[in-house]
Amino acid sequence: MRFKSFMATLETLNIDAFLVSDVKNVYYFTGFRDVSNSALNLLITPKDEPILLVPMLSFSAANKNAKNCIVIGLNFGEKNIDKLFALIRNLRAKTIHFDSLPVQTYVKIIKMLDIFFVPNPELVMALRRIKDQTEISYIRKACELASIGVNAGMEAIKPGVKEYEIAATMEYAMRRSGSEGTSFETIVASGPRSVYPHGMASTRVIQKGDLVTLDLGATYAGYCSDITRTVVVGVSSSKQSQILDLVFRANTEALHKLCAGEKAKDIDSVARGILTQEGYGKYFIHGLGHGVGLSVHELPVISPSSQDILEDGNVVTNEPGLYIENFGGVRIEDTVLVKKDRAERLTDAPYFL
Amino acid sequence: MRFKSFMATLETLNIDAFLVSDVKNVYYFTGFRDVSNSALNLLITPKDEPILLVPMLSFSAANKNAKNCIVIGLNFGEKNIDKLFALIRNLRAKTIHFDSLPVQTYVKIIKMLDIFFVPNPELVMALRRIKDQTEISYIRKACELASIGVNAGMEAIKPGVKEYEIAATMEYAMRRSGSEGTSFETIVASGPRSVYPHGMASTRVIQKGDLVTLDLGATYAGYCSDITRTVVVGVSSSKQSQILDLVFRANTEALHKLCAGEKAKDIDSVARGILTQEGYGKYFIHGLGHGVGLSVHELPVISPSSQDILEDGNVVTNEPGLYIENFGGVRIEDTVLVKKDRAERLTDAPYFL
Repeated sequence: MRFKSFMATLETLNIDAFLVSDVKNVYYFTGFRDVSNSALNLLITPKDEPILLVPMLSFSAANKNAKNCIVIGLNFGEKNIDKLFALIRNLRAKTIHFDSLPVQTYVKIIKMLDIFFVPNPELVMALRRIKDQTEISYIRKACELASIGVNAGMEAIKPGVKEYEIAATMEYAMRRSGSEGTSFETIVASGPRSVYPHGMASTRVIQKGDLVTLDLGATYAGYCSDITRTVVVGVSSSKQSQILDLVFRANTEALHKLCAGEKAKDIDSVARGILTQEGYGKYFIHGLGHGVGLSVHELPVISPSSQDILEDGNVVTNEPGLYIENFGGVRIEDTVLVKKDRAERLTDAPYFL
Repeated sequence: MRFKSFMATLETLNIDAFLVSDVKNVYYFTGFRDVSNSALNLLITPKDEPILLVPMLSFSAANKNAKNCIVIGLNFGEKNIDKLFALIRNLRAKTIHFDSLPVQTYVKIIKMLDIFFVPNPELVMALRRIKDQTEISYIRKACELASIGVNAGMEAIKPGVKEYEIAATMEYAMRRSGSEGTSFETIVASGPRSVYPHGMASTRVIQKGDLVTLDLGATYAGYCSDITRTVVVGVSSSKQSQILDLVFRANTEALHKLCAGEKAKDIDSVARGILTQEGYGKYFIHGLGHGVGLSVHELPVISPSSQDILEDGNVVTNEPGLYIENFGGVRIEDTVLVKKDRAERLTDAPYFL
């Protein structure tokens, strides 16, 4: 089905072949999932059966699990690039597009082969931005697992505990419940570290009065989730409560506006407007959200400069955040399914302790 | 120190500037570590102070933690590529090499700027293959953590337990002890799945008599480790014992031969020779090992076609494996430090239950 629709696109665009080398895209088309650094090459043409070229150590698994394509295993010692050249030559193609290659491989190919060879990752990403029912069920599960993680993390936060111990607790809770791993490096950013949007869990010891930001994702059947909660350890100061309430309001109002047909940048500006009105706009130093799927960052993008229009079947994050030096950081994030007439929040952990 | 030696190399090679975009390389040079998908650009020239360009949301952390360079934060909304163009133009450079970029960015740059722009990731990887004392201490710690994980996994293996539950137990044990995450997707491949070298932990239920391969890595201060053990659940069959002993012998003999000055391919052939002599060579479908450092796969490569010579300060894996359809798979792997006159095994989990 995914092959068919993509092959029709190739035909329409007069692209003779498309080379897929991103392991996530290979999984998307074939159902065969390999470790992230595996050297896979999938050649798709408008008419013929797709060909999946895999290293010998992946052949047995690929041959069993890859659907709707011919699987060719390299012999041990045979060079991937040589076999790929042979396959491409065999196509007698003039125009080949591809998703992702090291620049050195790209340069080799354009030197060796007389073809138009065009980087075009967007062609697959355009398909991936609309999720089908199966994908939505996987993401829904990944979001449930992430919520389990956050709940466990909130319970673990107390003075004297180290950030990485909280990360350990959250990841274990998710993993025991069926998560395959994390969508990205788990963030536990406490106290002064909370101003770092990317504050990966460190050895810092949690203290009373800290703001603690937990940002994590589970994966299920290869699909990601993404959730952030920020809590105060013990009694909040009035400034902490004020900022938490403000960011929560930005999150909530943006969620109400999120719906197919809306411009992504208008959703960003709902949240940004609320923060700006209260004088905090300059501390919101990233976009409101991003698509989530096989990658934790994909299309559409929700930011002031985005040209994207939201569509039924997009899955996006909604994550307003403020990062104020000498105060701390607060971010509240959900993963959200965009529907025809509304948005459904998929991450359902409580917002406050 | 790392900057200085690299800048001297640039001068010697008449390279006017080097653009580093791989976040691991940025960490290697500056000590600033960001999440893996962050858009960082580090410009190094032979003479001037290096410039690190970061998105606004990474500025606060980069400004605090990046050493020996000027940190420039993009304003929110400012395009990375525009600022990068301005910085490159300002250098008035003729020849710029780089480590890693999307092909689309590469194509844009060679179209827009009148420079020789050359992919050359090897120049940094050549530095990274020799580890200094600090790096060795980090890898040593990552290996200790991985061994803790394997020990916990071996205890958890029993009939009725699911593969991913064993993965959860191992990852939690490592994380609680200070691991920052996993070097790669944890492999728990049991029964018929043990023939998959990349058999990521699934929902399969462990059964009596299964071969179970555990392959995992911890990370510490950004540095990786890599260890594999294969065990039998309950009493081994004589064939299982025979194959386990054989692979163990290949691992042990290769370790004895591992030493600075040796050709990497000769170490591979020690292990491969033992397996081949017993008639199992064709089931050893990958190289014997790979370098380990900030990446779990780096230089040198230990395989039949490798041209690498082992050097004092290399850290490599030693991982013979046999994958036999209708029987199962066995792999035994250690992370090993290459020294002047011998090799030191850094992963010290027991080999058998």
